[in-house]
Amino acid sequence: MRLLLTALALCAATAHAADEPPPPGSAAALLAAAPAAHWRALAPENTLVMTLPQGQVVIELAPQFAPAHVANLRTLARGHYWDGLAILRAQDNFVVQWGDPGEDMPDEPRKPLGEAKDRLPAEFERPTAGLAFTALPDADGWAAQVGFVDGLPVARSGDVAWLVHCYGMVGAGRDNAPDSSTGAQLYAVIGQAPRALDRNITVVGRVVQGMEWLATLRRGPPPMGFYADPALRTPITAVRLASDLPPAQRPRLELLRTDSPTFAALNQLRRERKDGWTVRAPGQVELCGVAVPVRDIPPAPNRGSNPP
Amino acid sequence: MRLLLTALALCAATAHAADEPPPPGSAAALLAAAPAAHWRALAPENTLVMTLPQGQVVIELAPQFAPAHVANLRTLARGHYWDGLAILRAQDNFVVQWGDPGEDMPDEPRKPLGEAKDRLPAEFERPTAGLAFTALPDADGWAAQVGFVDGLPVARSGDVAWLVHCYGMVGAGRDNAPDSSTGAQLYAVIGQAPRALDRNITVVGRVVQGMEWLATLRRGPPPMGFYADPALRTPITAVRLASDLPPAQRPRLELLRTDSPTFAALNQLRRERKDGWTVRAPGQVELCGVAVPVRDIPPAPNRGSNPP
Repeated sequence: MRLLLTALALCAATAHAADEPPPPGSAAALLAAAPAAHWRALAPENTLVMTLPQGQVVIELAPQFAPAHVANLRTLARGHYWDGLAILRAQDNFVVQWGDPGEDMPDEPRKPLGEAKDRLPAEFERPTAGLAFTALPDADGWAAQVGFVDGLPVARSGDVAWLVHCYGMVGAGRDNAPDSSTGAQLYAVIGQAPRALDRNITVVGRVVQGMEWLATLRRGPPPMGFYADPALRTPITAVRLASDLPPAQRPRLELLRTDSPTFAALNQLRRERKDGWTVRAPGQVELCGVAVPVRDIPPAPNRGSNPP
Repeated sequence: MRLLLTALALCAATAHAADEPPPPGSAAALLAAAPAAHWRALAPENTLVMTLPQGQVVIELAPQFAPAHVANLRTLARGHYWDGLAILRAQDNFVVQWGDPGEDMPDEPRKPLGEAKDRLPAEFERPTAGLAFTALPDADGWAAQVGFVDGLPVARSGDVAWLVHCYGMVGAGRDNAPDSSTGAQLYAVIGQAPRALDRNITVVGRVVQGMEWLATLRRGPPPMGFYADPALRTPITAVRLASDLPPAQRPRLELLRTDSPTFAALNQLRRERKDGWTVRAPGQVELCGVAVPVRDIPPAPNRGSNPP
């Protein structure tokens, strides 16, 4: 089979066929051997579930970077604010954006924010102190140091840290005023990381499952991809905080801990790329090129049904 | 209108409404003022036109980097090799890949390559000498120097230069042997630049129009996105070299020359971002974050129909 087979298996928690053991030393073998403590379940109060006609998009929120926005997002979700609103924009190699179609049309009514705040502080960056920052040793074209905090890609410069606009990151649209975002209008990155946005806008979290539903949306007209024809907008069925869903309906996902030895070993494997395909190992990884493995929570051990 | 309006207008040649002049100092104004000599038309013999049910994908070939592969691609197109073949793979945030579905199935017949060669040299890199390299002054996490050659993103290290796997770049799938690509199976990057592939595979060109048709293709199953169900493969209607098409059917596109003062000025504008929205100008651009402006060839001046 041609092209990149081994080169890409590294990203996936399921890189081997389910009916055969993963090759020794492979990413799949590392993941299969990872103890349960190297994984963490999504916290329901930090998980937004957006249902589109195409499928479900699961977003992990980042209260450690944007506490005021995340609080407002929780309030908006509890008020069912986004239900019946729409995807407003899909610009190729940039962002998909959603919210109230009336917001940009002076003559149309805006959907009330309910109990959510209509003004929030800008949360573009925060002090590094207090963050459990796992640094990558790799070079970055944009920041002195990059790494991960609780699964999120982060850059830091001295005392200040900020979330990086990698693929799948979710931010809060704003007007020209830095404090003009409420979280009611959100966007997700669907292309090359637009790092020039870093520290210019509040990033609120990351899509951990369902990016394909956003990334494959029909693009709007250039240059910016706002749908001129309202009929082309994808309607949003519902957005809920997972903790407001019955337990059986919550996403049952685990993410590999980015402060775990398994995550460090995976990155080292990517740097060395000792597969049969790679001619020149890259010797490095790139912050926005590192996928954080996600898996369904394994079923509980089948206790008691068989004799020990 | 919320989010990123001015921040993104820089990428587009049509960032202002057609019925009003572009704001002075804007990217649109720079492009509008660019003399004709700053633009270049696609050369028909270096242009592949792939027709999908969704739309047309225009690929500019890179004979200066992959002469043997480009020669083979021309032969394959002339033999109508890809007509009736299919998109085989769409892996989110990585690549879309197309070619002969029979190639990966030992029991299925492979479509003959016709007069094309079934073995080519690896063309992963080439000497820097002889290239008109326009360097970017900006930092890059992967190479000592990056820039553009004839509109293509290029990295160099001393005497050696190579095409970089930015969004939209097209390469030739291969097996484990470095010289196992023929160009019959191609891929295009649809996500964050997979720079670890650089110098590991032959890059043959770049999609200059129609990326949205590839980027929005339904993703195949993880981890690698090969469609398990053949019914989900998008059929390829036809692939032609533009020079084999009647002139009226050729793409009439111009690209901004990457060695032009206008291109340099656009990049400087992106570094400085003196718009009303940006709080913190990035001070730099990133090789794979630079879009090369493309436009329809303007109609010829209306000579003679009006008195001078």
